[in-house]
Amino acid sequence: MKVQVGIIMGSDSDLPIMAETAKILDQLEVGYELTVISAHRTPERAVTYAREARRNGLKVIIAGAGGAAHLAGVIAALTTLPVIGVPILTKSLGGADALYSIVQMPPGIPVATVAINGAKNAGILAAQIIGCYDSVIENNLDIFKESMRAVVDNKAEKLEAKGYKAYLKEDMA
Amino acid sequence: MKVQVGIIMGSDSDLPIMAETAKILDQLEVGYELTVISAHRTPERAVTYAREARRNGLKVIIAGAGGAAHLAGVIAALTTLPVIGVPILTKSLGGADALYSIVQMPPGIPVATVAINGAKNAGILAAQIIGCYDSVIENNLDIFKESMRAVVDNKAEKLEAKGYKAYLKEDMA
Amino acid sequence: MKVQVGIIMGSDSDLPIMAETAKILDQLEVGYELTVISAHRTPERAVTYAREARRNGLKVIIAGAGGAAHLAGVIAALTTLPVIGVPILTKSLGGADALYSIVQMPPGIPVATVAINGAKNAGILAAQIIGCYDSVIENNLDIFKESMRAVVDNKAEKLEAKGYKAYLKEDMA
Amino acid sequence: MKVQVGIIMGSDSDLPIMAETAKILDQLEVGYELTVISAHRTPERAVTYAREARRNGLKVIIAGAGGAAHLAGVIAALTTLPVIGVPILTKSLGGADALYSIVQMPPGIPVATVAINGAKNAGILAAQIIGCYDSVIENNLDIFKESMRAVVDNKAEKLEAKGYKAYLKEDMA
Amino acid sequence: MKVQVGIIMGSDSDLPIMAETAKILDQLEVGYELTVISAHRTPERAVTYAREARRNGLKVIIAGAGGAAHLAGVIAALTTLPVIGVPILTKSLGGADALYSIVQMPPGIPVATVAINGAKNAGILAAQIIGCYDSVIENNLDIFKESMRAVVDNKAEKLEAKGYKAYLKEDMA
Amino acid sequence: MKVQVGIIMGSDSDLPIMAETAKILDQLEVGYELTVISAHRTPERAVTYAREARRNGLKVIIAGAGGAAHLAGVIAALTTLPVIGVPILTKSLGGADALYSIVQMPPGIPVATVAINGAKNAGILAAQIIGCYDSVIENNLDIFKESMRAVVDNKAEKLEAKGYKAYLKEDMA
Amino acid sequence: MKVQVGIIMGSDSDLPIMAETAKILDQLEVGYELTVISAHRTPERAVTYAREARRNGLKVIIAGAGGAAHLAGVIAALTTLPVIGVPILTKSLGGADALYSIVQMPPGIPVATVAINGAKNAGILAAQIIGCYDSVIENNLDIFKESMRAVVDNKAEKLEAKGYKAYLKEDMA
Amino acid sequence: MKVQVGIIMGSDSDLPIMAETAKILDQLEVGYELTVISAHRTPERAVTYAREARRNGLKVIIAGAGGAAHLAGVIAALTTLPVIGVPILTKSLGGADALYSIVQMPPGIPVATVAINGAKNAGILAAQIIGCYDSVIENNLDIFKESMRAVVDNKAEKLEAKGYKAYLKEDMA
Repeated sequence: MKVQVGIIMGSDSDLPIMAETAKILDQLEVGYELTVISAHRTPERAVTYAREARRNGLKVIIAGAGGAAHLAGVIAALTTLPVIGVPILTKSLGGADALYSIVQMPPGIPVATVAINGAKNAGILAAQIIGCYDSVIENNLDIFKESMRAVVDNKAEKLEAKGYKAYLKEDMA
Repeated sequence: MKVQVGIIMGSDSDLPIMAETAKILDQLEVGYELTVISAHRTPERAVTYAREARRNGLKVIIAGAGGAAHLAGVIAALTTLPVIGVPILTKSLGGADALYSIVQMPPGIPVATVAINGAKNAGILAAQIIGCYDSVIENNLDIFKESMRAVVDNKAEKLEAKGYKAYLKEDMA
Repeated sequence: MKVQVGIIMGSDSDLPIMAETAKILDQLEVGYELTVISAHRTPERAVTYAREARRNGLKVIIAGAGGAAHLAGVIAALTTLPVIGVPILTKSLGGADALYSIVQMPPGIPVATVAINGAKNAGILAAQIIGCYDSVIENNLDIFKESMRAVVDNKAEKLEAKGYKAYLKEDMA
Repeated sequence: MKVQVGIIMGSDSDLPIMAETAKILDQLEVGYELTVISAHRTPERAVTYAREARRNGLKVIIAGAGGAAHLAGVIAALTTLPVIGVPILTKSLGGADALYSIVQMPPGIPVATVAINGAKNAGILAAQIIGCYDSVIENNLDIFKESMRAVVDNKAEKLEAKGYKAYLKEDMA
Repeated sequence: MKVQVGIIMGSDSDLPIMAETAKILDQLEVGYELTVISAHRTPERAVTYAREARRNGLKVIIAGAGGAAHLAGVIAALTTLPVIGVPILTKSLGGADALYSIVQMPPGIPVATVAINGAKNAGILAAQIIGCYDSVIENNLDIFKESMRAVVDNKAEKLEAKGYKAYLKEDMA
Repeated sequence: MKVQVGIIMGSDSDLPIMAETAKILDQLEVGYELTVISAHRTPERAVTYAREARRNGLKVIIAGAGGAAHLAGVIAALTTLPVIGVPILTKSLGGADALYSIVQMPPGIPVATVAINGAKNAGILAAQIIGCYDSVIENNLDIFKESMRAVVDNKAEKLEAKGYKAYLKEDMA
Repeated sequence: MKVQVGIIMGSDSDLPIMAETAKILDQLEVGYELTVISAHRTPERAVTYAREARRNGLKVIIAGAGGAAHLAGVIAALTTLPVIGVPILTKSLGGADALYSIVQMPPGIPVATVAINGAKNAGILAAQIIGCYDSVIENNLDIFKESMRAVVDNKAEKLEAKGYKAYLKEDMA
Repeated sequence: MKVQVGIIMGSDSDLPIMAETAKILDQLEVGYELTVISAHRTPERAVTYAREARRNGLKVIIAGAGGAAHLAGVIAALTTLPVIGVPILTKSLGGADALYSIVQMPPGIPVATVAINGAKNAGILAAQIIGCYDSVIENNLDIFKESMRAVVDNKAEKLEAKGYKAYLKEDMA
C-alpha cells in the first residue's frame, strides 16, 4: 500500500492515543508511516520532515501532541499539505492547553484540529481527504460509516428489547 | 471555475466573518458556492445539502456557526467529504462554546476545526485539500505562502530600519 | 402506563448515567421509552424519531450526550415538543464541552438543559412538565419533594444527635 | 388571555434581556405576568411567589439573573412547576458564573436552563410546555418554526442571488 | 462553650470536607453547632435557620455546598450576620461551579468565600471574626498561627539537614 | 467616627472600584481609612500595615487588587484580623486570575473573598463583622437591608403597573 | 550600547504591546534589537535567528505572540539562551490561548512566561538576567525598583491627604 | 559546587514535584540549596530569604507553590534577582489557580513562569540564565539538549523499525 499519510507525535508517551490513527487507517486501507518527532527536542528533523513530505508522496500529515502542542503548527508552517492536529490530554487544564495551542493558528497557516485525544477521527479525516480523489477509499469510508450506523442500530434494538436493567448487567459489565 | 467548495453558515450574521473564506478562495482560484443553512432552523435543507454535496461536485464543505454550533457536525454526519468547521465568536464565553461544539466530535465523525473566527484559514485548508490532487492550486498555495513570508519580511525590514517609534506612528496609525 | 417521555442517548456508554432518568420516571409513575440514537452515527433515525415523536404520543424528549453533544439540538430542530438535554461528563474539559454544546442554542430552538450528568433531574423535569396537566403526576411530585425533605431532615437530626465524628464513622463508611 | 407563565428577574437591569421573553410570548399568544423579584434582596416575596404560583394558574416560571444567579433554583425549591432559568451575561467570567449557578442544580430540583441571555428561547420553551396540552399554542409554535425556516431560506436565496459582497453592503449595513 | 458559629452543609456527602471546620473550631475553642440544611430540599428550614440565627446567639454562619451552591447566598439574604461560603469540589468543572455560585453575589448581599474545599479556613475566618472582640480567641489564633510557622520551620530545617532524597523517602512515604 | 476598617488597594487604578467600599461604609456609619499599598511594589509597607493593624484599632482589613492579586493574602499572613479580598477585573481572563489568586488560599490563612469588582459587598461584610458586636451598626445594616428590599419592591410595582415597554422607555433610558 | 536582548514578535500588530519591552530596556540601559519574525510565516528566519542568537552576542530572547503562540517555543527549541515569552491578548478566550501555548512547554525546553500583555515585565526580567553579572544593570534595577516604590508611596500620601473623592476627580480624570 | 540557585516551595507536599528541579540541576552541575518557605505561614522568613539572596551568592530563585500561589511574587517583590515560578497542580481548577497566581504579575515585578508542575524546566531555565555567563554550564546545556534529541531520535528509529504494535507491547508496558 502506498504511504499517503504521515503520523507523527511529539513523544512516544502519545503512542497509546496515536495508535488509534494507525488502526483506523489500517481498517480503511490507507497507507501510512508513523514516527516520533518533537517540535522542541528534534526541531531540525521536524523541519526536514515537513519540507520533504510532499516529495515523499504524503498527502496528509497528522501530528499529535500535548501541553504547548506546537508540532502541528510547526509542520504546517513548512508545507502546503493539509496538516491535522490531535490535542493530547495531559493532567492539567483538562486538555485545553493542547487544544488551544493547536487550533488557534494565525491567519495563513491552518491546522485541521480534531477533538482532544481524537486520534481515530484524525485518521478518518485523512482518509476523507484522500477519498476526495480515490474512489476505493471513498467506498471504504461509506462502508465504515454504514457499519457505525449498524452498530448503533443493533445496540438500540438490543437495549429496547431487553430493557436498560438487563443491558447494564449483561452488555456493559 | 468549477465549484469545489461549499461554504455554509448558520446565520447571515456570520457573513462578515465567513466572507473571509470566500475572499481567500477567490485569491487562490478555487471555485466555491456560499449560502446560509441553519442546522436548527432549516434542518431539512442541511440534510439535503450534505447528502447531495458529493454528487454536486463538492470536494470540501466549510461550515461556520457560533454558540452551540452544530452545523458542521450535522453535515459531517451525512457525508464522507471532509468538513471544515469555523467557530464564530459571540458575546459570551469568549468563543469557547462554539469551539467545543465543533471540535469535540465523537469517534467516527471528524470535523476539521480551525481557530475561532478562523474563516480565512478554513479557505486555505480547503485549498490545501484540493491542492493534494490539483497542481494549479498547489502552485497558488506556494505563491500565497511565499507572499505571506515576503510581507512579514518587508515589515521586519522596515521596522528594523526606522525603529519602533517611527513605525508605530507612521505604519500603524 | 402510557409512554409520554422518550429517553435517547448518543451512545450506550451513556447508559449508566441515563438509567437514572428511567429510574426516577419509574418512581414517579411516568411512562417512557428508552433507546440509543446518535445524531452523528444514525442521523436519519434521529430525524425520524423527532418528526414522529408527537404523533407517537410523546410529550417530552430527553437527550443525553457527551463531547460535542448535538443530539438534543438536532431533535429540537425537528419538533415543537420540549426537549431536555443532559450533558454527559467525559475525560476532558470537565464536561464544559457537553454543557456548552447543549445549552448555548441559538434563538428559536431551545433545549432545556440540566446539570452535567443530571439525568435524574431530567426525569423530574419531564414529570413536572407532564404534571402541569396531570394531577396524578403532580401529586407524585409533591410526595417525592416531601420525601426528599424528610430524608434531609432525618440526616440532619441524626447528625445533630450523634455528632459529626460518629456520623462519619457509622453513616458514611 | 389567561396568565400561564410567570416571568421574573433578579433586577430591573435584566429587563432589556428579559423583555425578549415577553415579546415572543406575545407573538405566540401565551399569557404571562412579569415582575422583579430578587432571591437575595426580596427573599420573602420569592418564597411567596413560588408557593402560590400553581394556585395562581401559572404553568411555567421563567427566572432570569446574572452572577451568582440563585433565583431560578430558589423558586424551583418551592414548587413542582417547571422552572426555566436564563443566565444573564455580566462583565466578568463571560457569563459562566450565571450559567453554572443556574444549571448545576443538585439531584431532585431541576432548573431548565437556556443559553446565556437566551430569554427568547425561555419563552419558546414555556410555550412548548404549554403546547403539549394546548393545540392552539402548538399550532402557533408550528407557524413560528415555519416562519423561522422561511426567513433563513429567504436570506439564503438572496445571498445566493446577489453574492456576498452585495449582501454585505446592502443587507447588513 | 457558647455556640457562636453555625456550620451547615447542603448534603451529608459534604461532611468529610466540612468536618474540617468543626475540627479547627474545636482546636481554637470556638463553640459551634453543625447540621445539614439544603437550600433546595429543605428551603423552609433554611429560612428559619437564617432568621433565628442572631437570636440564637450565633455570630457567624458557615455554609458548604457544591454545584449550583445556593445555600450561603440564601442564608445571607435573610440575616445580617456574616456568612462564610465553602465551595465543595464535585466531579465536573473542577469546582468552578460551586466557587462562582458562592462568590459572585450581587451588590448588597455579601458571602465571605473561601477556597474550594477550604472548610478549615472557614473555621479560622469565623474565629478571626469572633476574635475581633474576644481576646481569648484572638490569643488562640496567635498560638495557632505561631504553631503553623513552627511546623513549616521544622520541616524546612529537617529538609535542609537530610536533603530531599532522604526526606522524600523517610518523611513522605 | 472611630476608624475600624482599613481599605487598601494595590494601585490607584483600582480606586474607581474600591471607592464603592468607602461609600457604603460612609452610609453604614463605619469609620475607615483608605490608602494604596502594593504587595509587590511596596512590600515593606504592606508588612508594617498588617503588623500594626490590630494595634491601630482596625477590626477588618479590605484589600482590592487585580491580576496575580497577592495583597490580601500577604496581609492575611501577618495578622489574625479578618481580611476581605476584592478581585479587580482587568482585561484578560475575565477576572478569573484575580479571583483565583485571592480565594484559593492554603489551609491556615483565610481570605474572605467577595465577587469580582465586589467592593460594595466588601464594605457590607466588614460592617456585618463589626455589627456582630456593635448594635448601632447592626441596626444600620437592618435599615440598609430593608431599604434594598423596598427599592426592589418599588421597581416591581412600577414595572407591573406600567408594563415592560413603558418601563424600558421611561425608567431605563 | 551593546545589543544583549533580542525582541521579536509574531506580527507587527503586536508592536503596540511589545514596544513596552523596548521602552523599559531603554530606561534600564540594556541594549536590544527588535524585529518581526513569525514562527509560522517565516519559519526559516526563526530558525536562523535562534541558531545565531548566542553568536550574535544576545543573552536573552523575548518573543511575543498571540493565539496559538508558538514563537517562543520554536526559538527555545534551537538555543540554550533563556527565552522569555509574552502572551498577547486577542479577542477570543481572554488570552488563555496565548498563555497556555507559551507556558505549557514540555520537559526539556523551558520558556520563561510573563503575564498576558506583560511586555514591560519581559524587559525587566531580561534586565534581571543580565543584571546577575552586570552590576550597572543591577544598579539600574535597584533604582527602578526604588522609583516604583516611591511612586506608589506618593500616590498613597496624596490619596490619604485629599481623600478618595478629590483624588478621583483631580488625579484620575 | 557553589550554590547559585535557591529552590524554595510553599509546603513539603510540593517536594515530589520540586525534587525534579534539584535532579536536573545535579545533572547540569549547577549548585543549589533547597528548602520550604511559605509566603503565608512563614512570611518573615520569606522576606529575609529574598533580601539576602543576592548577598548569599544566589543568581536565581525558583519558587514552587499551588493554589493561590503567592510565593514567587512575594520573593520577586524583594529582590532584583530573576525569580522563576512553578505552579503546582492541586485537585481543583486543573492548576489554573496556581498558574494565574504566578504568571499574572503586575508591571514592574516579573516572575518567569514555567508550566504547571514544570519543575524540571525551572531548573533548566535557571541553568540557562547562569549559562549566559558560565561556559561550563552553557556546555552542559548543549550536551543535555543534544542528549534529548538523541533519546527522541532513538525512540523514533525503534518505533519505525518494529512498528507501533510491538512498541506498545515491548517498550511501554
